[in-house]
Amino acid sequence: MSTTDTNTPDAPDARLIIAASEIDADLYYATHFLAPDAFIFLQTETEKILLVSDLELDRARTHAQVDTVLSLSRYQHTARRNGIENPTSLDALRQVLQEREIKTLLVPRTFPIEAADHLRNAGYRLSFPPGSFFPRRECKTPDEIDHIRQVQRHTETAMHTAIGAVREAGVQDGVLYLNGAPLTAGAVKRLIALSLMENGCTARHTIVACGDQACDPHNQGSGALRAGQMIVIDIFPRSDHTGYFADITRTIVKGPPTHDQRRLYETVLEAQTLALERIRGGENGKEVHHAVMDLFENRGYATGEIDGRMQGFFHGTGHGVGLEIHEPPRISKADIPLRPGHVVTVEPGLYYPGRGAVRIEDLVVVTPDGCDNLTSYPKELEV
Amino acid sequence: MSTTDTNTPDAPDARLIIAASEIDADLYYATHFLAPDAFIFLQTETEKILLVSDLELDRARTHAQVDTVLSLSRYQHTARRNGIENPTSLDALRQVLQEREIKTLLVPRTFPIEAADHLRNAGYRLSFPPGSFFPRRECKTPDEIDHIRQVQRHTETAMHTAIGAVREAGVQDGVLYLNGAPLTAGAVKRLIALSLMENGCTARHTIVACGDQACDPHNQGSGALRAGQMIVIDIFPRSDHTGYFADITRTIVKGPPTHDQRRLYETVLEAQTLALERIRGGENGKEVHHAVMDLFENRGYATGEIDGRMQGFFHGTGHGVGLEIHEPPRISKADIPLRPGHVVTVEPGLYYPGRGAVRIEDLVVVTPDGCDNLTSYPKELEV
Repeated sequence: MSTTDTNTPDAPDARLIIAASEIDADLYYATHFLAPDAFIFLQTETEKILLVSDLELDRARTHAQVDTVLSLSRYQHTARRNGIENPTSLDALRQVLQEREIKTLLVPRTFPIEAADHLRNAGYRLSFPPGSFFPRRECKTPDEIDHIRQVQRHTETAMHTAIGAVREAGVQDGVLYLNGAPLTAGAVKRLIALSLMENGCTARHTIVACGDQACDPHNQGSGALRAGQMIVIDIFPRSDHTGYFADITRTIVKGPPTHDQRRLYETVLEAQTLALERIRGGENGKEVHHAVMDLFENRGYATGEIDGRMQGFFHGTGHGVGLEIHEPPRISKADIPLRPGHVVTVEPGLYYPGRGAVRIEDLVVVTPDGCDNLTSYPKELEV
Repeated sequence: MSTTDTNTPDAPDARLIIAASEIDADLYYATHFLAPDAFIFLQTETEKILLVSDLELDRARTHAQVDTVLSLSRYQHTARRNGIENPTSLDALRQVLQEREIKTLLVPRTFPIEAADHLRNAGYRLSFPPGSFFPRRECKTPDEIDHIRQVQRHTETAMHTAIGAVREAGVQDGVLYLNGAPLTAGAVKRLIALSLMENGCTARHTIVACGDQACDPHNQGSGALRAGQMIVIDIFPRSDHTGYFADITRTIVKGPPTHDQRRLYETVLEAQTLALERIRGGENGKEVHHAVMDLFENRGYATGEIDGRMQGFFHGTGHGVGLEIHEPPRISKADIPLRPGHVVTVEPGLYYPGRGAVRIEDLVVVTPDGCDNLTSYPKELEV
């Protein structure tokens, strides 16, 4: 993104976030305080400060990992004493900024325009970093890696349950049945959700997509599961306790796959192996992604818009995972060096309507010399 | 919030949202297209336009309720031809704006500062409305009310399951047991989650809080449930299918309540009844909220910081519910007229550490003459 003259100031007096920490991962990262409504976070060189409503005051004082919790209503009261008629939370914030002689603020790139205009009109200088707001968030600590590893273990358990159901299922007229009922995409998603729930995780938008459904990578899948067709299962839950995500995808076929299906699968697996071998601290994500693209091209699997639909390999090779399911770094066309502590997916895929789709996804930690795979679930096409 | 000179322009050429529709309810409302990553939405007087990545192109063309779906990568290509070296999505957007001769833009109050600065530096005029971006979203259509009613029915089923478990439970040494195991807050939350899952709904942050835990309205509760203590159960799930939320709270005691508990409960119930009687199109939310506050004061239930903790009634009387769990209008100190079609919670509460907490919450639709209660689950303290 382009920068403006306000984007590269001298060190600002404080960082400022105004958001709901349930949605804003940076704010949760900075405070470890989960709240459904927007609140105000200020960080000077020496102090982390929250400005919260009466409703959150006690909980913030008990749980937030900050130095100071201030009452929004108290500072609104101060603003009223200073002549502001119906003081908003931004008016209250300005009282705090004045009290602490803060004049320049570093805000996230997503900082809301309304608050930005209000503060700039009041004389404050706002800037935002060109990249991550907390660059350290990109490289996970050993504790964070443990959290993610734990979620990935539960994700693998759920995958095992899902694939086990397909394995146990019988086939009637090409359709999967289990315990006398059709084993639909919805039924498998329920088994996955139950398994995750038992382990304190919640998944949204789990994908169990069969046949041509899976050729659209974000189609979540529905209806009958059929023998002899590729089934893509993609599970990316969040821990209810720690807030960290994990992510895994496997592709299976009930019954013997065709030669074409097997070759598609083996090619994606080969691409994933290549990517896993190349990933290490200092490698550029772009190089990893291009290696995958080249391999597909060389094997005769073309990418592009064909018959009005995207076909081939048209998403990134991977993305960061942490307090968000998609976070920096990406492993894609973008020029982004990988660094030790990055936790990224490695998920090449090929999608050809009429023939089927394959995606195979592991979750790894980048190390100085390579990567540690947090995923051990087997990769077998036929079940 | 204060307004600036850019906030009240003449009719802008187009509306613009840049967000992920999984998080941004306005964007989902405008497009009915769910995507996990940010995409670009433009709306002129005659055309709704999406600008999306290759990954989402086919799905957007199939599912998004818009007129035109444009390929982000195609417009990045155009930008490159026009001399921009590494065109971002904002550079691509500018190509679209030029093509359509759009120069002034209405954006949401949450529009990201980075995109705002980029566009303003390129000569575009941005403004944002002082209130909702789509004011019509506040007043629900009959279809939307049906969606919410449906979710509330599933929420009541889950509440019935939860209260049923407490009713069935035995008591040993003051602690609830069911089927030989402690009936903990966690166990009840699992029953609730299972019931909701069976009905295609997902709840996050369900509250099952016993005794002093419940005195903090956002404490989700954990550990043993005890006989003779107030248990607050608050369930606010979202439909996996329609995206709409619902919301209900009940307070119960296992075994006979004390006189003090019963009086607290009856007072909150009286306040809720009063609020339900006052709500109608044209009434101001502030008046409803003050009526509740006055009733509590008159009954001797004081509100304020006592012994360093907020006590009494220190949250709003209600909030709008729709594609967000907290959305306009609020029924609180704020001066907000209620209008027919508003769907709001009515949830007075009293919180006194050492004595217990009561919150009773229904979900209603405001009508010209009163309100329709979408909630029929009984209100009984003792189970």
